[in-house]
Amino acid sequence: MKTFAIILSGCGVYDGSEIHESTMLMLAIKKLGCEYELFAPDKEQYHVVNHLNGQVVNEKRNVLAESARIARGNIKDLKLLEAKDFDSLILPGGFGAAKNLSTYAIDGEKMSVDNEVVRVILDFHKSNKPIGAMCIAPVIIAKVIPSALVTIGQDPKTAKDIMALGAKHKNSNKAEVVIDYDNKIVTTPCYMLESNIADIYDGAYNLVNALMKF
Amino acid sequence: MKTFAIILSGCGVYDGSEIHESTMLMLAIKKLGCEYELFAPDKEQYHVVNHLNGQVVNEKRNVLAESARIARGNIKDLKLLEAKDFDSLILPGGFGAAKNLSTYAIDGEKMSVDNEVVRVILDFHKSNKPIGAMCIAPVIIAKVIPSALVTIGQDPKTAKDIMALGAKHKNSNKAEVVIDYDNKIVTTPCYMLESNIADIYDGAYNLVNALMKF
Repeated sequence: MKTFAIILSGCGVYDGSEIHESTMLMLAIKKLGCEYELFAPDKEQYHVVNHLNGQVVNEKRNVLAESARIARGNIKDLKLLEAKDFDSLILPGGFGAAKNLSTYAIDGEKMSVDNEVVRVILDFHKSNKPIGAMCIAPVIIAKVIPSALVTIGQDPKTAKDIMALGAKHKNSNKAEVVIDYDNKIVTTPCYMLESNIADIYDGAYNLVNALMKF
Repeated sequence: MKTFAIILSGCGVYDGSEIHESTMLMLAIKKLGCEYELFAPDKEQYHVVNHLNGQVVNEKRNVLAESARIARGNIKDLKLLEAKDFDSLILPGGFGAAKNLSTYAIDGEKMSVDNEVVRVILDFHKSNKPIGAMCIAPVIIAKVIPSALVTIGQDPKTAKDIMALGAKHKNSNKAEVVIDYDNKIVTTPCYMLESNIADIYDGAYNLVNALMKF
């Protein structure tokens, strides 16, 4: 049995964690006989988006408290996450990865990554433990581990930004994973490609399965 | 192929739809080769709960806009839902079912049900189309169709309330369904019993499978 740490970034595709990616990942981990714990940074979201019409609204929400909705309250402050307690780390996607865990949605290739997220990724990487990322979250891996090979599907602009960060990009299809054996990094495109929720489950399953093999 | 209408009630177990139940249901429908559309009432939530500490907070949120987080924006006002367009109706659980779709969490057996929810349930029932409900949502079915046989798991207080409403209750275990053949109603306990996300998927799968057989 392996134990996975998952970093959430809010609750909802436009300003937080993509809910399907997060829950399909949790299901895949359980179906593969493993366990997970959830973490999120205790800080204000970049902004709040009305998911019905896509408009930014004048509200403040906390990343950890909103992530707790996906977690049914069973979640911890990212500050408490240490690689020694887990076998592997996974970052689901959603704009939260590009707005709350990093500034990719705002700054593109000039992005920065939340200090705690950097610390955790490097902790797992230096501990020689495998790291997974879904959807847009691989840009964070590309920024923190510039020698990484990752996939975000087939979007040319994002692939170009990843290469500008010094990392490598490989195109992928629905539910496929790209494996960087040197860096022990596994990535899958999820909703970066036109997909339904069953495709997302298949991608999450393939991701966890590949991470377990390291 | 069958088409299912799903009624959401917000986004998060303590003040809206239970996220795992909703997304596992969506996955089960897809895995069984069927389709779904999502609906929610366009009204203010009963209240907003911080899911990290369980405290009610001084905020207002809209049931339809929050449900849109689970739906990735692809959701309609419940007013637009008509039984003629679907083969079956399903209500996932979460406190939203007992606070936003009905007043069960506040009023117990003296509960009332949102007018639009009543209209939709009776539309499907009178059209002789099967109805499913998960977790606490079966109390809504018991109120609207008092001859119903349902399950909410094994909680004696809730079972007693269901009988006080004139309906019948049958205890059930994890992932089991209870089928009312006369009224074409299928229910499953989900998080009304101690469960993990894989149990919820199994219950959702069994629910959809039973509804498809009508």
